[in-house]
Amino acid sequence: MQQLSFAQRYDEYKQAVETTLASLIPQQLPDTLYEPMRYTLLSGGKRVRPVLAMLACDAVGGNGMDALYAGIAVEILHNFTLIHDDIMDAASVRRNRPTVHVKWNESAAILSGDGMIAIAYQTLLRSPDLTRLRELIEAMNTGIIEVCEGQALDLEFQDCATIGLTQYFEMIDKKTAKMLELAVKVGGIIGGGSGTQIEALCRYAQTAGIAFQVQDDWLDITADAAKLGKTIGGDILEGKKTYLIIKALEQRDSLPDSDRTLLDEFLQKRGLSAEYIPTMQCLFEQNGIFANARYEVERLTHEAHAALDALPDNVGRTFLHEFATMLLERTH
Amino acid sequence: MQQLSFAQRYDEYKQAVETTLASLIPQQLPDTLYEPMRYTLLSGGKRVRPVLAMLACDAVGGNGMDALYAGIAVEILHNFTLIHDDIMDAASVRRNRPTVHVKWNESAAILSGDGMIAIAYQTLLRSPDLTRLRELIEAMNTGIIEVCEGQALDLEFQDCATIGLTQYFEMIDKKTAKMLELAVKVGGIIGGGSGTQIEALCRYAQTAGIAFQVQDDWLDITADAAKLGKTIGGDILEGKKTYLIIKALEQRDSLPDSDRTLLDEFLQKRGLSAEYIPTMQCLFEQNGIFANARYEVERLTHEAHAALDALPDNVGRTFLHEFATMLLERTH
Repeated sequence: MQQLSFAQRYDEYKQAVETTLASLIPQQLPDTLYEPMRYTLLSGGKRVRPVLAMLACDAVGGNGMDALYAGIAVEILHNFTLIHDDIMDAASVRRNRPTVHVKWNESAAILSGDGMIAIAYQTLLRSPDLTRLRELIEAMNTGIIEVCEGQALDLEFQDCATIGLTQYFEMIDKKTAKMLELAVKVGGIIGGGSGTQIEALCRYAQTAGIAFQVQDDWLDITADAAKLGKTIGGDILEGKKTYLIIKALEQRDSLPDSDRTLLDEFLQKRGLSAEYIPTMQCLFEQNGIFANARYEVERLTHEAHAALDALPDNVGRTFLHEFATMLLERTH
Repeated sequence: MQQLSFAQRYDEYKQAVETTLASLIPQQLPDTLYEPMRYTLLSGGKRVRPVLAMLACDAVGGNGMDALYAGIAVEILHNFTLIHDDIMDAASVRRNRPTVHVKWNESAAILSGDGMIAIAYQTLLRSPDLTRLRELIEAMNTGIIEVCEGQALDLEFQDCATIGLTQYFEMIDKKTAKMLELAVKVGGIIGGGSGTQIEALCRYAQTAGIAFQVQDDWLDITADAAKLGKTIGGDILEGKKTYLIIKALEQRDSLPDSDRTLLDEFLQKRGLSAEYIPTMQCLFEQNGIFANARYEVERLTHEAHAALDALPDNVGRTFLHEFATMLLERTH
């Protein structure tokens, strides 16, 4: 039997996720509750989290398909956070389409997000083997709480002039990395992984997750708008304290006068209007901030790869290795 | 040993709930996440749901205190729905204090509510016996989903001129009664109740819960404002389709001209300003709508009592009987 390539395995798992998701959210009343769920969950996306769960399940010696529902549970949680975060960030576009609170209204966005949390737990319960149910539920609980902490920190940071890189990394660890950790954790539990193996998977997902967010910050201002599915430089418009901004602020005193003024204005006005985006791009480029971001992403990806050494040498582990590389190389 | 009275048992259980709740929500950062949780959960309230869970546990032959954490889990869910509903209803006062989205902001209200869902599942896991964990989690999932459906229906009904009593009862069954059902269900499961016993408990809670809401609709416009902890007639101001309004609309064609005009104006303007509240009180009083509401509450309470016949004749069952009577007789 010929071994599947990483890309083939990814496609196979992603396809299983799409098919299952389509049948999962009931086409039932009330419309204002279930339509936003279907709209959000069936709008594509890379399905990073469920595929990660399935690969983690393989990597500890399980059968990846057994982690399908657990992985989808995490995907549903991830999408709930997108809907609620979009309200809080007043974001109007996601994946090239209006956000839920814009297309429907804020109440529909709050409610459908709430309902998705319960549907995520419900989906987890469809897993074929629930002997470690308590561990699975605990992982879900902690994952949700930490992602809420991360979003709360993110919002608090918007009102706070002096955020350092340590605080930034703590925030994105919770806001972004924890959902990836949750994915590999439920996958690892369902695959029968040992405590040590699950810890290794979590370290892998944590470092890959932080790399993922730094990459996101970088792509927000360097990517192709159509590919990204939203406005380029959105973080600048919203006044977000991204890796790039925090790194630039760290070097503030050694920057040229014009760059210092620009950064101060960004802080004072909590964001800059669209015409300043090219100037900010130049600032990041000329002061090596883009290079710093790339370096950081590569360093973290290397750490993620290293964490995998604690796992048995099998094709699942190899695919997790390739997965982290894929995240590093993505352009949107 | 002298038998405790219902009031003593209620106080004992309520006190255990207060003490445990106070230690449950961490006093930790981020403040904007955890402070609104503590503010909401430690603001008193009747603790109807956890006490119900504990009495249900007693009624099926268990030890009520074993259902403490499961009951508190339901109380936390109930409070999450209050925070999110207050955003959607633009309510500014609850329990005599500003609502969370007013005291903090909308993002803090969304996030703390989200986090409370996960903390509810976490609290459930502290229960002393989790042999029926899967059933417990399923009950939580369904409870949350149905309460979201109920709130979605409630919002949809605000935009819909012709709501009948059947639709109204479906909505409050989900929005209000399901959380009481969830309380007795988790209590019954933890107490080791059989399927038949748990069904009886659910029928009891469903009818008592619907009675509770009709009573709430009635109290909203007849109670003492200080006791109620919010503005009298708030439902009229917000244009809510309560039992009273729907019942009045059912009789619209046989009402005096002035009352018909008032009701039509209520529908057109989606609510009336404060000076119309006494006139609405007269309308409900003179056309027997208040009497209808009282009758309905009594009929449903009687049904709730009857559902208890399927349970063993013990003091737990007697207290559930008295509990429903207490809800019927409350003045706020």
